[in-house]
Amino acid sequence: MLLGPGDDAAIVAAADARVLISIDTQVQDMDFRLHWPNGYSTTGFDVGWKAAAQNLSDINAMGGRATSLVVSLTLPGNTTVEWVEDLADGLTAAIHELRASTCAVVGGDLGRGTEISVTAAVTGSLDGRPPVLRSGAQPGDVVVLAGTVGRAAAGLALLESVHEYGSLEEKLRGFIRAQCRPRPPLESGPAAAAAGATAMMDVSDGLVRDAGRIAAASSVHIDLDPEALRYLGEPLRGVASLLGMDPLEWVLGGGEDHGLLATVNPNVMPLAGFTAVGSVEAGHAEVTVGSQSPANVGWDHFAD
Amino acid sequence: MLLGPGDDAAIVAAADARVLISIDTQVQDMDFRLHWPNGYSTTGFDVGWKAAAQNLSDINAMGGRATSLVVSLTLPGNTTVEWVEDLADGLTAAIHELRASTCAVVGGDLGRGTEISVTAAVTGSLDGRPPVLRSGAQPGDVVVLAGTVGRAAAGLALLESVHEYGSLEEKLRGFIRAQCRPRPPLESGPAAAAAGATAMMDVSDGLVRDAGRIAAASSVHIDLDPEALRYLGEPLRGVASLLGMDPLEWVLGGGEDHGLLATVNPNVMPLAGFTAVGSVEAGHAEVTVGSQSPANVGWDHFAD
Repeated sequence: MLLGPGDDAAIVAAADARVLISIDTQVQDMDFRLHWPNGYSTTGFDVGWKAAAQNLSDINAMGGRATSLVVSLTLPGNTTVEWVEDLADGLTAAIHELRASTCAVVGGDLGRGTEISVTAAVTGSLDGRPPVLRSGAQPGDVVVLAGTVGRAAAGLALLESVHEYGSLEEKLRGFIRAQCRPRPPLESGPAAAAAGATAMMDVSDGLVRDAGRIAAASSVHIDLDPEALRYLGEPLRGVASLLGMDPLEWVLGGGEDHGLLATVNPNVMPLAGFTAVGSVEAGHAEVTVGSQSPANVGWDHFAD
Repeated sequence: MLLGPGDDAAIVAAADARVLISIDTQVQDMDFRLHWPNGYSTTGFDVGWKAAAQNLSDINAMGGRATSLVVSLTLPGNTTVEWVEDLADGLTAAIHELRASTCAVVGGDLGRGTEISVTAAVTGSLDGRPPVLRSGAQPGDVVVLAGTVGRAAAGLALLESVHEYGSLEEKLRGFIRAQCRPRPPLESGPAAAAAGATAMMDVSDGLVRDAGRIAAASSVHIDLDPEALRYLGEPLRGVASLLGMDPLEWVLGGGEDHGLLATVNPNVMPLAGFTAVGSVEAGHAEVTVGSQSPANVGWDHFAD
């Protein structure tokens, strides 16, 4: 950061003469509830954390590292100062704990509204590397994933369930944390870029949907490996059984963990932090699971 | 623009290895009404224009030129597609008509809410120059203004009046346009910076308040010239008389024209596009008008 908050604009370094930029908004009752059916109340800390994490993830997905955040808060008149301070703490905690150490909160804007709305814009640096776009996947590439998938969706299902937050064991609370305070794997984006990843994006809308976006942008067919997906579903088995769900549905459709989906040439495997989850093939731009339509293996595209 | 919309983040050139960044939000019923007491309805075009203009003005106030905008829209479910297209047209029209020709809309985000909320973040370039901060005003400097002041406030007063929009003459509608589609003087920021302006900011909260911010940041006393202020009020005399107002009040307190307030060494005067409106003096950080307290000359600091 070259100039922080307090003037008409901030100034951020962009050593390689380019800057990445993205923007994301969270709105109360659309992207989060203040009070959930299971008794959990979303904290300002959660909202601040998630605003930072979502935006940092967008930079990660280009292969970059974040350099600054600006935040615009719209708050109802009855919002307490404590809640706002908690939000600021959540922003900085996410930046710190996710190790986005070169990212500074450089400015903001505060206004009134009838519902809480938090928009953050993030800048990032590619450090001289080319960006990793969605459009570069090549037939023969391996599809790989860093971070978790389905945990945030399991957390959402718990929040909307009758299982009282207060009586949940710690392991189950972890799924709710994955929903409220996602942890995108921020080391993995630059690492995959440096290793020559051909395409990349963050999983915000679910593996099938987001793999479909890479398939469409790259004009390739992506086949996800049922064995790998079953393995990804293993840690979700307990909570799925509690809620009467199939873990595979969360693995296929759950976004918001902000895991990182990439395609790489097989000769760079194994790639630290990533698991192989499928393969890129020539053919019609679509996503299959073990060569079958995702709908045939438990993916309900109306689920979210 | 090096990479536009469609990936996880956009990429914007930053030739001098620095990037300016700022963010601003407009919320329905707080920053604008969809339907005004005088019968005017705010269009999507107005909201898009103002989102661009406000943000472009922040970059202008640093002495920079805008390089990109990202926009996040939160819209109620009953918003029509036409309204959203009109907003997009307003954004691009403002960029074009205000001659921010190096600024591209490079990305965005769209979500639901119960009220319309539009947040834009803008990046800009200083083209190798140092930024012009609020903190550099020096005793002996001249205080100068580019663009208009008080016109948007007059427009707001008309919108909130009983004077039906449909029956207003064209000249009066011009004040409403100043409120709904402000025209910050985007050539003037880089020009003043190149001429060596010592401090600068955009007038978004009124001359007295914003001059007070320069005074505070620079630890100087700013004395505004009553003759110059009267001159700035001349074009407002007719509408003020219609509404039973004192034009000086709008000159002193009216923001939202997004005029540009700067301080410069007298040896660079005259500076094209700028009018002298006061002087910088050593002393307590405050703003006076002809050495008097603004409250004594008609400035009501509770007015907005």
